[in-house]
Amino acid sequence: MWQLYQFPLCPFSRKVRLLLGEKGVGYELVRESPWQRRDEFLDMNPAGQTPVMADPDKNLLLVDSMAICEYFEETVEKSSMISGTAANRAEIRRLVSWFDTQFYGDIVAPLLHERMIKRLVHRAAPDAKMLREAMKAALQHLDYTDYLLDHRHWLGGATMTLADLAAAAQISVADYLGGIDWKGHEATAGWYRGFKSRPSFQPLLAERMEVISPPAHYAVHDF
Amino acid sequence: MWQLYQFPLCPFSRKVRLLLGEKGVGYELVRESPWQRRDEFLDMNPAGQTPVMADPDKNLLLVDSMAICEYFEETVEKSSMISGTAANRAEIRRLVSWFDTQFYGDIVAPLLHERMIKRLVHRAAPDAKMLREAMKAALQHLDYTDYLLDHRHWLGGATMTLADLAAAAQISVADYLGGIDWKGHEATAGWYRGFKSRPSFQPLLAERMEVISPPAHYAVHDF
Ligand SMILES: N[C@@H](CCC(=O)N[C@@H](CS)C(=O)NCC(=O)O)C(=O)O
Ligand SMILES: N[C@@H](CCC(=O)N[C@@H](CS)C(=O)NCC(=O)O)C(=O)O
Repeated sequence: MWQLYQFPLCPFSRKVRLLLGEKGVGYELVRESPWQRRDEFLDMNPAGQTPVMADPDKNLLLVDSMAICEYFEETVEKSSMISGTAANRAEIRRLVSWFDTQFYGDIVAPLLHERMIKRLVHRAAPDAKMLREAMKAALQHLDYTDYLLDHRHWLGGATMTLADLAAAAQISVADYLGGIDWKGHEATAGWYRGFKSRPSFQPLLAERMEVISPPAHYAVHDF
Repeated sequence: MWQLYQFPLCPFSRKVRLLLGEKGVGYELVRESPWQRRDEFLDMNPAGQTPVMADPDKNLLLVDSMAICEYFEETVEKSSMISGTAANRAEIRRLVSWFDTQFYGDIVAPLLHERMIKRLVHRAAPDAKMLREAMKAALQHLDYTDYLLDHRHWLGGATMTLADLAAAAQISVADYLGGIDWKGHEATAGWYRGFKSRPSFQPLLAERMEVISPPAHYAVHDF
């Protein structure tokens, strides 16, 4: 049985979980708080980051969310999420990198730092200026997803792909942390509403991170 | 003909160039300085980062170095650089991410900032403390590559893979910027010496970034 080392608000683990859900791969969750820098975890992943996947019976260890996603794309045929021509596939991977790097760096990383790490590790209050900047960046990012969805059915093209899973993973964590103002972003809101009703998304929406509560609309399907 | 938008010290562009060299794919260089945030370049890549590859005749645009490498892996059979079983391929991608994120973030990004951006953009002197910290981080990173090479012929396994190209790309930029002290890292030095004599590496070693000179040993094969 695969084990997934993660914590509820890790967006990279969420992307992997959405992929495993769509593909019907079973796994069990192992709670890991990377900021504790546990020795046994650093032995598995010297980068000290979640997600990590291990299958001890088969002596398999997978590190880095994109390497994990490519692995399951290659080994599980069902629901291909990096599909189409080589050019389509390049566009899907560009967008995954966009959400994992730019959306994460501009919005999710500062929100996690201000609202989670400061609370759990430093026992300090969030910096209001940092929160405002992350929320402002979120508006610009949603303009871009609106623009993509004006031209395509799904973010990466005509069908649902890993680009959508990566985006939903990052957006859902930002939404949990109160960083998303949905007003005026109808295209992205409509796409996300559809996403929220997928079976693969239900376990994520039901989970809570200790001491941090999401806004009322977070798990509501018809927000 | 493919065009590669890059500047001489962009490690991600170097990784792509090494792959194209090994595969025998022709391309022409287009000089791009991402810190200038040129409008036409932002239209091609909203992330504003090099490398970008374009083939105007075929109306193809590739963005993000890993998406670019996967594209040429999929379309050009010669010299497969993400090879082996799915587990091997996952290990190669983990290491590419390690060098592109951890090695870049700990060493190359601060060196580029202190020695290149400050000089070209801010006309300021580098901060000696930042340089010292990057060089200290380099020693720890070379301990890790030494450790990998004690257990494997190449960084990613038994044959040369994209993990080696990613590592050589980052290390060569760090070396150009005076960030690498080779003493005491015989395994990595031996591997890098072999790498420096490959035809794919020659154009990179011959190029210079204006106003910044590499140390004397930089382009010497038998350093
Ligand atoms: N490139 C990695 C990034 C993973 C990542 O940044 N994970 C965060 C949690 S959301 C982490 O573990 N941060 C702790 C650290 O970087 O020390 C991936 O895609 O798996
Ligand atoms: N994930 C990107 C990273 C590329 C990257 O960071 N490029 C640097 C130059 S070495 C850049 O363009 N930086 C400018 C910026 O981020 O604004 C890739 O692998 O292509």
